Amino acid sequence: MNRSVSEGSLVLLFFDLRRQWLIRVDSGRQFHTHKGFIQLADMVGKPFGSEIKSSLGYSFWVLRPTTYDLIMHSARRTQIMYPKDIGLIVLKLALTSGMQVLEIGTGSGAMTVAAATAVKPSGHVHTYESNAEFADVAERNLRRASLSEFVTIHRTDANAGIEGSDFDAAIVDIGDPWTVIPIVHRALVNGAPAVSFSPTMNQVERVACTFRDSGFQNVQTMECFVREIRVETGKTRPVTTMVAHTGYLTFAQKALKEA
Amino acid sequence: MNRSVSEGSLVLLFFDLRRQWLIRVDSGRQFHTHKGFIQLADMVGKPFGSEIKSSLGYSFWVLRPTTYDLIMHSARRTQIMYPKDIGLIVLKLALTSGMQVLEIGTGSGAMTVAAATAVKPSGHVHTYESNAEFADVAERNLRRASLSEFVTIHRTDANAGIEGSDFDAAIVDIGDPWTVIPIVHRALVNGAPAVSFSPTMNQVERVACTFRDSGFQNVQTMECFVREIRVETGKTRPVTTMVAHTGYLTFAQKALKEA
Amino acid sequence: MNRSVSEGSLVLLFFDLRRQWLIRVDSGRQFHTHKGFIQLADMVGKPFGSEIKSSLGYSFWVLRPTTYDLIMHSARRTQIMYPKDIGLIVLKLALTSGMQVLEIGTGSGAMTVAAATAVKPSGHVHTYESNAEFADVAERNLRRASLSEFVTIHRTDANAGIEGSDFDAAIVDIGDPWTVIPIVHRALVNGAPAVSFSPTMNQVERVACTFRDSGFQNVQTMECFVREIRVETGKTRPVTTMVAHTGYLTFAQKALKEA
Amino acid sequence: MNRSVSEGSLVLLFFDLRRQWLIRVDSGRQFHTHKGFIQLADMVGKPFGSEIKSSLGYSFWVLRPTTYDLIMHSARRTQIMYPKDIGLIVLKLALTSGMQVLEIGTGSGAMTVAAATAVKPSGHVHTYESNAEFADVAERNLRRASLSEFVTIHRTDANAGIEGSDFDAAIVDIGDPWTVIPIVHRALVNGAPAVSFSPTMNQVERVACTFRDSGFQNVQTMECFVREIRVETGKTRPVTTMVAHTGYLTFAQKALKEA
Repeated sequence: MNRSVSEGSLVLLFFDLRRQWLIRVDSGRQFHTHKGFIQLADMVGKPFGSEIKSSLGYSFWVLRPTTYDLIMHSARRTQIMYPKDIGLIVLKLALTSGMQVLEIGTGSGAMTVAAATAVKPSGHVHTYESNAEFADVAERNLRRASLSEFVTIHRTDANAGIEGSDFDAAIVDIGDPWTVIPIVHRALVNGAPAVSFSPTMNQVERVACTFRDSGFQNVQTMECFVREIRVETGKTRPVTTMVAHTGYLTFAQKALKEA
Repeated sequence: MNRSVSEGSLVLLFFDLRRQWLIRVDSGRQFHTHKGFIQLADMVGKPFGSEIKSSLGYSFWVLRPTTYDLIMHSARRTQIMYPKDIGLIVLKLALTSGMQVLEIGTGSGAMTVAAATAVKPSGHVHTYESNAEFADVAERNLRRASLSEFVTIHRTDANAGIEGSDFDAAIVDIGDPWTVIPIVHRALVNGAPAVSFSPTMNQVERVACTFRDSGFQNVQTMECFVREIRVETGKTRPVTTMVAHTGYLTFAQKALKEA
Repeated sequence: MNRSVSEGSLVLLFFDLRRQWLIRVDSGRQFHTHKGFIQLADMVGKPFGSEIKSSLGYSFWVLRPTTYDLIMHSARRTQIMYPKDIGLIVLKLALTSGMQVLEIGTGSGAMTVAAATAVKPSGHVHTYESNAEFADVAERNLRRASLSEFVTIHRTDANAGIEGSDFDAAIVDIGDPWTVIPIVHRALVNGAPAVSFSPTMNQVERVACTFRDSGFQNVQTMECFVREIRVETGKTRPVTTMVAHTGYLTFAQKALKEA
Repeated sequence: MNRSVSEGSLVLLFFDLRRQWLIRVDSGRQFHTHKGFIQLADMVGKPFGSEIKSSLGYSFWVLRPTTYDLIMHSARRTQIMYPKDIGLIVLKLALTSGMQVLEIGTGSGAMTVAAATAVKPSGHVHTYESNAEFADVAERNLRRASLSEFVTIHRTDANAGIEGSDFDAAIVDIGDPWTVIPIVHRALVNGAPAVSFSPTMNQVERVACTFRDSGFQNVQTMECFVREIRVETGKTRPVTTMVAHTGYLTFAQKALKEA
């Protein structure tokens, strides 16, 4: 990792918890905020973590974006999975360097970014997205995160067929996963884990039952909440509003029947 | 990854969501449950995902444990961080293959297992634990997870000094992180992220303020909840009880002051 | 209200937050606990709020039970609604002294106790329970709470017909409320509020749609969570486990169609 | 209760869950919305629950406001307690017709409205508010809810002294309850319950300890969450955002020491 900002670096320009931006460093540009503008050229050559002053004299910080930031600042055309969900998926799918991951429903690529981060440099994510506009957005998000080489976006409907087999894990994020789950079963290595993300209550039971009926075991559904705490000396308290719901996660593992 | 169970494999023996065990395959042993016993020798040579019958004829499944299972089935002497917390940490710390991670407070090693999984094979976790009993348990958990080569357990108090520098991320999980946070600041690469885990409300404000006073920016505190859904046809509903609290997570990034 | 404990009083015998009992004072009896026994005769004539010593010298407190305690210590044969749910219902149904309330599905009578407390002395609760065992338990819970005179338990199926009309509010807590909701509509005063309690996700959509289709407006579904905080000096934190789910509450108000 | 809307009635004009207003019927006025205007004179004489058409032909409903609506539509100058909190308080304080309630910190009067609804017609709420602007707002909210006769607003600081004694329950909602809690202890009947509402984590431990040190027992702190579910056929799911926090509730009961 480069320790200093260079032309073209992706940085998190941080003012406070509510005002922060993911930007690409382009020396010819200024970045305007309510607290004055920043000359992006001023960042070049500085170590990450450096303070930088706006035209009005306010302190901003040039931080290295984390996976969390890449997700939360994704360009998006779809509802995205949130870090609270994605973090659980990374652990339940045991994602680690070298794995081959199948994703059906790239959407805006938030999950794809995290999966690629988990399996690189020797692993790969094969992701399917039949909506061209979504695929374009995901492609840009992956390029911005410098993860394109670890991902292949297949711009087709997974129901029409999956390239390859023996995937180590699978992620399904489409509205009607019923027909795709049996395809996922065939594409996975024996015993490999899978997850399906479902925004509605109506989908939950059907997804879980489809997993069971398609030869999966250890089918477990959960939902995750995150609440921020606003720390202010003598007045520390949870924030006033929070995300109430993104979706339900249903996990499963591919099983084999006895001969 | 081996696709079949062999002598010495670590497996998740699965009966249902409430009855599952993490066990080491030893052909000479039987594993006893309320549904009869399993001859462990019967598993050897079978693909992961295989069904196996107990002495009473019940179906069990031999699954490959995921990171989630390794955490939830950790041997433990301490309160552990849960997957809901660890998943967020992995994303907020941008853990990925090749990173050098500093952990202060190994505890039972649940977080260590996930960190090692995220940074292997080319990265490494240096973890400090002054309590010998905890260090022993963590060592066993890491060995069981086949992750020992990616972790060095330092059996000393981090306040006495940290070996190495230029860490890419840091995790603090001790009751009194106040003196350690400045040490963490020095040990990190500029701009690198850190997290501190605090079970009590009393710690939250003090941890966040200590981060700020020690030269960190982007200090953000959050807590995470997970609720399981019990899927049963026509009677799907959230479970009756859930974990209400493990701890508060305070994240930060190392900043530099302008010269 | 009597300010002192007398023979036959219902008291909350309090040791700590985990060890407390709702008991009827009977001078001839002892009450045994792990901290020694209490001579119930010792309480008689003492003001509520008094300390009392067990045979082993431990301090217990003789408290007046609140509506919350009557609910949480209900004898029960069924899943009960919890104070978190019941409190919301009292406000959403605008329960107040003098109201006539219709309840379908008495269950163990936890909600009935709160409704009677809200509408007494001039109001009344008419509650329907076709299961004789549940009705018996509810009757005992109401008698114990000294609320019997404000409640009539109808031991019949509400589908067979409701006595009376012009109810000011209605509470439905049965597994299959579909046929009863139109009956509730007819039994209510115009504009009056109603609620249905549903443990499963499957019921939620159907209940809300049945309300709408039966001539209700302002149909709103919600769920409620309560988390306790354990206060200990310097170690204050949320408790470890909490109730994850009791049921979903669907509220509605009886509407009229234009002629 | 009047079953029909009359001149001066308070009504909930309902379009949908997001668009509803609490208004006073004044025949000379029109009420304007994005869906056209309503002639308020059209409502007079209609039963509650009636449909009414806007100038653009949209259906609105004239509903009777519940306690929940009075709270949620309160005029406010302060953060208010929400129905989720107030409902629990009503049950934990065993509020019922005839009780004398002491409230310190009227704020905008949201809790006062619910307390008066619970204790009327024979009970009374004595509430203290030293901020004249808050007291004015609370007075208007109570008048609008037709509850003024059941409440006395004392426009003084409770630290300067409380009128009366032998209160059956007490509610404290001020930023610095430390000196007031002993005053509350003296003002309550033996064994009577009290609650203090605290927005910050810093207050929680101190409030609970102050209760204990001031002679209260059964000191219990909790927080409450409510999540709405948006029911749409085939797409039912929790809403996207929710209130993350209003405050912590600490309950206690007045105890006596043995002579």
